[in-house]
Amino acid sequence: MNNLAHILSEIKKIVGENYVFTDQETLNNYGHDETEDLTFPPHIVVKPANTFEIAEIIKLANEFKIPTTPIGGKTGLSGGALSVYGGIALSTERLNKIIDIDEKNVQVITEPAVITQILREAVADKGLFYPVDPSSLGSCFIGGNIAENSGGARAVKYGVTKDYVLNLEVVLPNGEIIWTGANTLKNATGYNLTQLMVGSEGTLGIVTKIVLKLLPKVNHNILMLVPFYKAEQACEAVSEIFKAGITPSALEFMERDAIDWSLRYVEGISVAVKPNHQAHLLIEVDGNYLGILMQEAEKIVSVVEQFEIDEVLFADTEDQKNALWKMRRGVAEAVKANSVYKEEDTVVPRYELPKLLKGIKQIGEKYGFKSVCYGHAGDGNLHVNIIKANLSEEQWQKEVPKGIREIFELTVSLKGTLSGEHGIGWVQKNYMDIAFSKTHLELMEGIKRIFDPNNILNPGKIFPDEDI
Amino acid sequence: MNNLAHILSEIKKIVGENYVFTDQETLNNYGHDETEDLTFPPHIVVKPANTFEIAEIIKLANEFKIPTTPIGGKTGLSGGALSVYGGIALSTERLNKIIDIDEKNVQVITEPAVITQILREAVADKGLFYPVDPSSLGSCFIGGNIAENSGGARAVKYGVTKDYVLNLEVVLPNGEIIWTGANTLKNATGYNLTQLMVGSEGTLGIVTKIVLKLLPKVNHNILMLVPFYKAEQACEAVSEIFKAGITPSALEFMERDAIDWSLRYVEGISVAVKPNHQAHLLIEVDGNYLGILMQEAEKIVSVVEQFEIDEVLFADTEDQKNALWKMRRGVAEAVKANSVYKEEDTVVPRYELPKLLKGIKQIGEKYGFKSVCYGHAGDGNLHVNIIKANLSEEQWQKEVPKGIREIFELTVSLKGTLSGEHGIGWVQKNYMDIAFSKTHLELMEGIKRIFDPNNILNPGKIFPDEDI
Repeated sequence: MNNLAHILSEIKKIVGENYVFTDQETLNNYGHDETEDLTFPPHIVVKPANTFEIAEIIKLANEFKIPTTPIGGKTGLSGGALSVYGGIALSTERLNKIIDIDEKNVQVITEPAVITQILREAVADKGLFYPVDPSSLGSCFIGGNIAENSGGARAVKYGVTKDYVLNLEVVLPNGEIIWTGANTLKNATGYNLTQLMVGSEGTLGIVTKIVLKLLPKVNHNILMLVPFYKAEQACEAVSEIFKAGITPSALEFMERDAIDWSLRYVEGISVAVKPNHQAHLLIEVDGNYLGILMQEAEKIVSVVEQFEIDEVLFADTEDQKNALWKMRRGVAEAVKANSVYKEEDTVVPRYELPKLLKGIKQIGEKYGFKSVCYGHAGDGNLHVNIIKANLSEEQWQKEVPKGIREIFELTVSLKGTLSGEHGIGWVQKNYMDIAFSKTHLELMEGIKRIFDPNNILNPGKIFPDEDI
Repeated sequence: MNNLAHILSEIKKIVGENYVFTDQETLNNYGHDETEDLTFPPHIVVKPANTFEIAEIIKLANEFKIPTTPIGGKTGLSGGALSVYGGIALSTERLNKIIDIDEKNVQVITEPAVITQILREAVADKGLFYPVDPSSLGSCFIGGNIAENSGGARAVKYGVTKDYVLNLEVVLPNGEIIWTGANTLKNATGYNLTQLMVGSEGTLGIVTKIVLKLLPKVNHNILMLVPFYKAEQACEAVSEIFKAGITPSALEFMERDAIDWSLRYVEGISVAVKPNHQAHLLIEVDGNYLGILMQEAEKIVSVVEQFEIDEVLFADTEDQKNALWKMRRGVAEAVKANSVYKEEDTVVPRYELPKLLKGIKQIGEKYGFKSVCYGHAGDGNLHVNIIKANLSEEQWQKEVPKGIREIFELTVSLKGTLSGEHGIGWVQKNYMDIAFSKTHLELMEGIKRIFDPNNILNPGKIFPDEDI
């Protein structure tokens, strides 16, 4: 980076000495998120206090054409927050206040660095409900959820992040500040820049304030764990549950290895997994009337009983529910602890799930890799963890990407796409041609140029290498 | 239009002689929708049979830079389908098939010219539910609903059109065809062109196939009509109902004149409106358990009873329900039959509704016009019908627009915006500066240029006159 000394001194003028970092430890720390084993240290880490400081930093970055990558909770799984071209890592962490829980309009206005779980708990204290709960909810930031259009376990009934975002304050790549929309449930006023911003992975602007719609609190739920003797049958059961007229509030799939590894990794949980259990479905229904939930749970049992299953486990206490969720949410970290891996975030219409799972296993056999699959089956969203284990470096670098390409081709042929909730970021960008034609990618790139003609904001993401 | 003869002959080659029209009656017929008293006859009306014919027409239009305006059910209220610069009116009416009701994935794939009500009934026959029901549902096209991001009475509980659109086949302004996304409930793969297309009023592409998510059918509802002695109290009651933890499936507001005019205009309905009723709320709850709905209805009654109301009317039969809805849906046409008028589609966070109504009346007094207000109060979406009645042409053309500007300024100051569900189209475009800064409008215009560099597709819409 040229002019480093000058830029550093200008940035210090904006945010103060104490919030600019160039020591190697900090650079390394802000050079990674939860994506595989990747680290891209930036040249500078800056921690602005508010929208205006961010705007000033961005103006400077735009003037000197410095790559600038917003970084939040560092829980991303596609490398969206990595400073792949160095430059400035702009941490939003000091913008961490819930500005207003607006009970009168059933909305919340928040800064981006509020941890999703803290936001959920704060609105729950007022009798309100923010349903989106990515597995990393205890550490991810709501701003990152917007950048990646995060989903999670409750999306099957309640939708994903984009379904709750009403309005965003955004610092544009030229340093100007706009609100993308209005604080209204309906809006037919010009192009929907709010929805364009959601899922744009920090490439079009830096989100500095967020208006989310909320729901009334839901009081009850029932949680059950269903062991299947055949993994594909677990996938088949998924669309049958919906066919019976039930919309579960969560419908999660775990392959054998996923549950095994998580049980070993996460403390304080015991589930009697038998040797012949190939997969489990974790199923939750929620609502305000326990009697109705019990009817729904019985209906679900009668659906899954049509498949080859072992005894259904019902969580009797809050502790048991928490333990089952801890096990489910622990899968990702358990996989990470077990082996170097690559995670793909495939998504298909839910009825196609058995075909997807079967195809992934066949592709794995062809290229000689093992995969551990789990995810949000109710959404057709299957996380495919490809395990390095004993593969040679050459197999890992050359053969596995061919297999991943085939997995994505299968996904798209089933009317699905590359990512359900993790984003494209750095690690999937060279597969974009599978989902999109050249014309289509050019439209997206054209939008990027309109917002960010100097390509300073989170460069190197989303678009294939040859394209930008 | 230059080259008219040549272009006509080329278009006839594409679609056949029988589907190209230049007679004055047809041109006039396709020169208007339901917007005020406006008519802009195109030079040519063309009725292609399918996506490929549309692509060929668009390529021709792009080559010869002919303004081309897609037109559907002609029920629009912002002039979005009017050929304001002449050229080609491209009617989608022959693309009127429901392609597949996909029960396995709880989705429907349809062409754009299916009437919304027909789509709703077709999926209901399979036990499924498409909730979006604009007041014009008996004649509007689902494609038009996407163009304008239509809402309607059930949006308060179920959301608007955008919340159901998963994927769109679109003919771009250069004649190329893309699918904007995937047929999945979750998607974090590149910029969300699906959501960018929804509500873009036919300015970015022509939608030729639509994938919508559906819900399981809902079996019961309860409908009640509540007469208020004070209109502002009716507005105040709206957010109190939500505060009580109820999410009604419809929550409609009608000012005195709206209900009076509709009762006179729509046949076969009698409601005992008393002289001192200033406004009514029409409130529906729905669900699968009648007992619970009755509890919710009682809760609603206990909320509205805290205001000055007359006796609540419950619809006892399906016929009574239909009659009340016919009355509500008839307001727009009743207003139209009563006087020349301008309709504004204001939307605010719902708690701000009383302030909005009061402000509108004050602005009306200042500029000497009368307004009839009604709409989807649960969404904060208030339709303001400004009545010409005995105003002079000069007052109508010069003074009323100043008042409208003040109404929109008020709306935006309350964190609302110009249009909740009708779109900006032709009639509101010169108010866009109230909602958006120059920078913001330039971003939207930049997107338009990326998609449509020759500005052939539905030119003269959304953007202020001085801007494009």
